[in-house]
Amino acid sequence: MDPEHHHSPPSQSPDLRQVLVLRPPPVFSVHEQYFSKFQILKAYDSPLPTLDFLHAYAQSVKVVLCSGIHPITADVIRNLPELQLVVSAATGVNHIDMEECLRRGIRVTNVGDVFSDDVADGAVGLLIDVMRRISDGDRFVRGGCWPDAGAYPLGSKLGGKRVGIVGLGNIGSRVAIRLEAMGCIVAYTSRQRKHSTPFTFYPNVFQLASESDALILCCALTNDTRHMINSRVMSALGKTGVIVNVARGAIIDEAELVNCLVDGKIAGAGLDVFENEPNVPKELFRLDNVVLLPHRTAFTKESFHDAAQILIKNLEAFFTNKNLFTPVANEF
Amino acid sequence: MDPEHHHSPPSQSPDLRQVLVLRPPPVFSVHEQYFSKFQILKAYDSPLPTLDFLHAYAQSVKVVLCSGIHPITADVIRNLPELQLVVSAATGVNHIDMEECLRRGIRVTNVGDVFSDDVADGAVGLLIDVMRRISDGDRFVRGGCWPDAGAYPLGSKLGGKRVGIVGLGNIGSRVAIRLEAMGCIVAYTSRQRKHSTPFTFYPNVFQLASESDALILCCALTNDTRHMINSRVMSALGKTGVIVNVARGAIIDEAELVNCLVDGKIAGAGLDVFENEPNVPKELFRLDNVVLLPHRTAFTKESFHDAAQILIKNLEAFFTNKNLFTPVANEF
Repeated sequence: MDPEHHHSPPSQSPDLRQVLVLRPPPVFSVHEQYFSKFQILKAYDSPLPTLDFLHAYAQSVKVVLCSGIHPITADVIRNLPELQLVVSAATGVNHIDMEECLRRGIRVTNVGDVFSDDVADGAVGLLIDVMRRISDGDRFVRGGCWPDAGAYPLGSKLGGKRVGIVGLGNIGSRVAIRLEAMGCIVAYTSRQRKHSTPFTFYPNVFQLASESDALILCCALTNDTRHMINSRVMSALGKTGVIVNVARGAIIDEAELVNCLVDGKIAGAGLDVFENEPNVPKELFRLDNVVLLPHRTAFTKESFHDAAQILIKNLEAFFTNKNLFTPVANEF
Repeated sequence: MDPEHHHSPPSQSPDLRQVLVLRPPPVFSVHEQYFSKFQILKAYDSPLPTLDFLHAYAQSVKVVLCSGIHPITADVIRNLPELQLVVSAATGVNHIDMEECLRRGIRVTNVGDVFSDDVADGAVGLLIDVMRRISDGDRFVRGGCWPDAGAYPLGSKLGGKRVGIVGLGNIGSRVAIRLEAMGCIVAYTSRQRKHSTPFTFYPNVFQLASESDALILCCALTNDTRHMINSRVMSALGKTGVIVNVARGAIIDEAELVNCLVDGKIAGAGLDVFENEPNVPKELFRLDNVVLLPHRTAFTKESFHDAAQILIKNLEAFFTNKNLFTPVANEF
């Protein structure tokens, strides 16, 4: 059934500023009013199935606005023959089929490093929380345990601890600055050694884990990093080791992480991201040595405002044939 | 009734290394084995009422080991006519009647700045937690809310926020270093301006609160600082302001704090200390914008080990007539 039988065909005006949204990125939901100068095509508000919605606008849509909550797959792209630009409200682009974009000459923008400071603060907050048992202490007090409780487990000091950063990019380097201020000893692994930093480089995550008291994951999710943190790496980190993940859930083999935490093969974890969000393994809910966030380390009022401005600058640049504000280099 | 009728009188050996403990400081409980070279007189293990226990050892006890969990009042001191030294397992000495000690020529030691880094980390952890809703997010995920929830409130960015430190001593100055690494703008108030720091000084806490987005309390509890944070100061801090207290509960007027939090006159609080520990106002348990710790920001394995060594060094110095390791200047 052709959806155009049910809906009037889209206008073909040459200066139409159409922006397709399959599911609304949180930044868009919070600041939708900023986008009033564009014609937002809301697939998520339509009674049509997504594919029919795509067909209805296939001949006019040149721009998609997206984030990690709805992947832009090769299938989506194939259904949009006029697509020229994917505007992502995230920093990572693992939810976009970059290979298909490259093949089709479709450009991609992200939000640059607008979230980097917030994510770095979140990573450090999670590390302090796990090592110093903050959320656990809060549960203890709210549960009314303090007046009667005997011994409460001691936390671990941050000063002097060796913290390994996986991916020393925009976020990882900001995490490093914060850790140094707390007296941690910072090392890292990344695709390439960064000669501009004073931190010890390890060529792979196994060696980094072997020499670290904690790992903080700040790298992109790629085929190389998927399930990079497995039980072998966690064993190298050891029984007193802590993992913080503010990157993407699938960088850790989540089933093995759950086993390592339940069996005490590592000491704890602070997790903002999961393999199958919003689903979190139920086994983690029973553990006091984990802190679980709903993918929120980037979520502040300030960064959302700034990110919305970046999205609009990219959209305006596209519709006025100017240089994109924050294009992503596509190197597949 | 004279307790000596029930107990053999204490030995009067001149080299007796007696140390009286009314209630065991947590550092002592965790590391009691380190103290085996001393004769620990455990009032808390005795069937005698405390006063009778004191009388039983009044003629021999020269040293008391204490912490905030049992105050060393003028009454306690009067019952120990031979007392020469109070060894505190804390940094603050507000639980010791310093005036009476001065009058009697009783010396006091604390544990120096052994806890300062840990308390500073805890303060920063609480600030991040409140502003970025970490414990709240953890409750949200553990409560199974993520899959179904709609909007989740955004946090506040730390970078660019004006954070006022109340008391720029060992702890406050360490907090400042950590905040600068996160891009906060640090100011402070203290008894005296510190000319060696680059931070803006305000002569009183009201002015500091008026110019701050968050206050972190790191000062000693004295007659001058008791209830220093009242509703007037909190109104100056304002509806978006956050308070972190890692100092002593009574620096805040707790009843007024509860009202300000419940009424939304300030945005949130991270509290490690309370006026009547271990009792915490029940109204706080219902609030999502507070993080409550059981007076634990100093509690790490590493600092407890180090603190125990300092206690022992002070005790050994006393019993061998050497200079005390970490004496507290008594200036009342």
